Amino acid sequence: MAKEVKLLGAWPSPYVLRVQIALELKGVSYEYSEQQLWENKSELLLRSNPVNKKVPVLIHKEQPIWESAIILQYIDEVWGAGGPAILPSDPYERAIACFWASYIDDKWGPSSIGILRGKTDEERAAAAEQAFSGLELLEEAYEKSFKGKRFFGGDNVGYLDIVLGCFLGWIEVVDIMFSVKLFNNAKFPLLAGWAERFRAAAEVKKLMPEAKKLMEFAKAAQARMTAAAAN
Amino acid sequence: MAKEVKLLGAWPSPYVLRVQIALELKGVSYEYSEQQLWENKSELLLRSNPVNKKVPVLIHKEQPIWESAIILQYIDEVWGAGGPAILPSDPYERAIACFWASYIDDKWGPSSIGILRGKTDEERAAAAEQAFSGLELLEEAYEKSFKGKRFFGGDNVGYLDIVLGCFLGWIEVVDIMFSVKLFNNAKFPLLAGWAERFRAAAEVKKLMPEAKKLMEFAKAAQARMTAAAAN
Repeated sequence: MAKEVKLLGAWPSPYVLRVQIALELKGVSYEYSEQQLWENKSELLLRSNPVNKKVPVLIHKEQPIWESAIILQYIDEVWGAGGPAILPSDPYERAIACFWASYIDDKWGPSSIGILRGKTDEERAAAAEQAFSGLELLEEAYEKSFKGKRFFGGDNVGYLDIVLGCFLGWIEVVDIMFSVKLFNNAKFPLLAGWAERFRAAAEVKKLMPEAKKLMEFAKAAQARMTAAAAN
Repeated sequence: MAKEVKLLGAWPSPYVLRVQIALELKGVSYEYSEQQLWENKSELLLRSNPVNKKVPVLIHKEQPIWESAIILQYIDEVWGAGGPAILPSDPYERAIACFWASYIDDKWGPSSIGILRGKTDEERAAAAEQAFSGLELLEEAYEKSFKGKRFFGGDNVGYLDIVLGCFLGWIEVVDIMFSVKLFNNAKFPLLAGWAERFRAAAEVKKLMPEAKKLMEFAKAAQARMTAAAAN
């Protein structure tokens, strides 16, 4: 029998990793379907997500759910009893977590990935500067709202941990390829400590892709873009 | 005694209107503080929202909450019993409403406002084309998921109604100033009917700014930008 839960994903995607971590936290068993990121998108992906045609898509009882942050909330609501709460139950804490999550998705994430995507040293430096400013804000937020807690979510990995932590594999690639150490202990001791704890969490450790594999993917993607630009 | 709930707003802002409609739906009494949109931001605004320095900010029991979509969820959770539910309680319906809300915030809203902000006929035409494509998707979504319902939220104005409907005053300005009729009955009969019902809803009618007033504001803003560019 086909599984009730299906995830359309792509292994290098930090957004897909979010959904995988959440399903793991809740102990949900699912069928995983690896998708092409750019070309030859599958008929299943196009049919399941006709609006933006992107992974991740979670299909539950044949109903597709789109956008990783929304999928995390859905998983928390549907499989609430399966594991620790992903979103805080207190409305104010929930609002704070959602605010920082949207900040990460709209501003910090794109800057950090921008370091890899930058075509020149100048573009990379500008993206790094933005990413560092964002981390300053996040370090302050940790100090103010989360200090003394093991994770943003408290004792367990929660919403904001997943939303930010999904980038840590790619952040390591940025460090190796361009010697930009974003989560560095001297500048951001709270975030650096958090990043270490997050990566060590059992549910995360088994799912986070290796930096070496991500780097190979990045180089292949770069070669692909250069070839496309030359044509 | 100072009120427990305070809203920092600016009357022409559709995002502030969202919060006002939600507070009205829940019957929450609050103190309103009108803020400057661009210059001379108040010390209260800068202190309450140091990260992005923007309205709306809802201050509840001295705790500030930022970002209109997050504030709507907060209001629904804190004053749940005060009025009809803003967000659907079913996890799938909730995910669908949140998806379209994020689509409107990230893509459709900026295109529609782009018609007003465009500096040339070409820029305005490109923005209008994007806005029309977005409405095609929304009309299809209405047909598929909301048909036969009075509002996206069902019998009552809900989350997606507020998120989309807050733009209707500005959409009228677009129609008057540039003869671009976005919610037109021939192309989008479901959305056109919805827009009429939304504007007529008691909670909305008393809060939606008049197109004439918005137009004066738009002209003043335009003159201000032209003067700034000339300096």
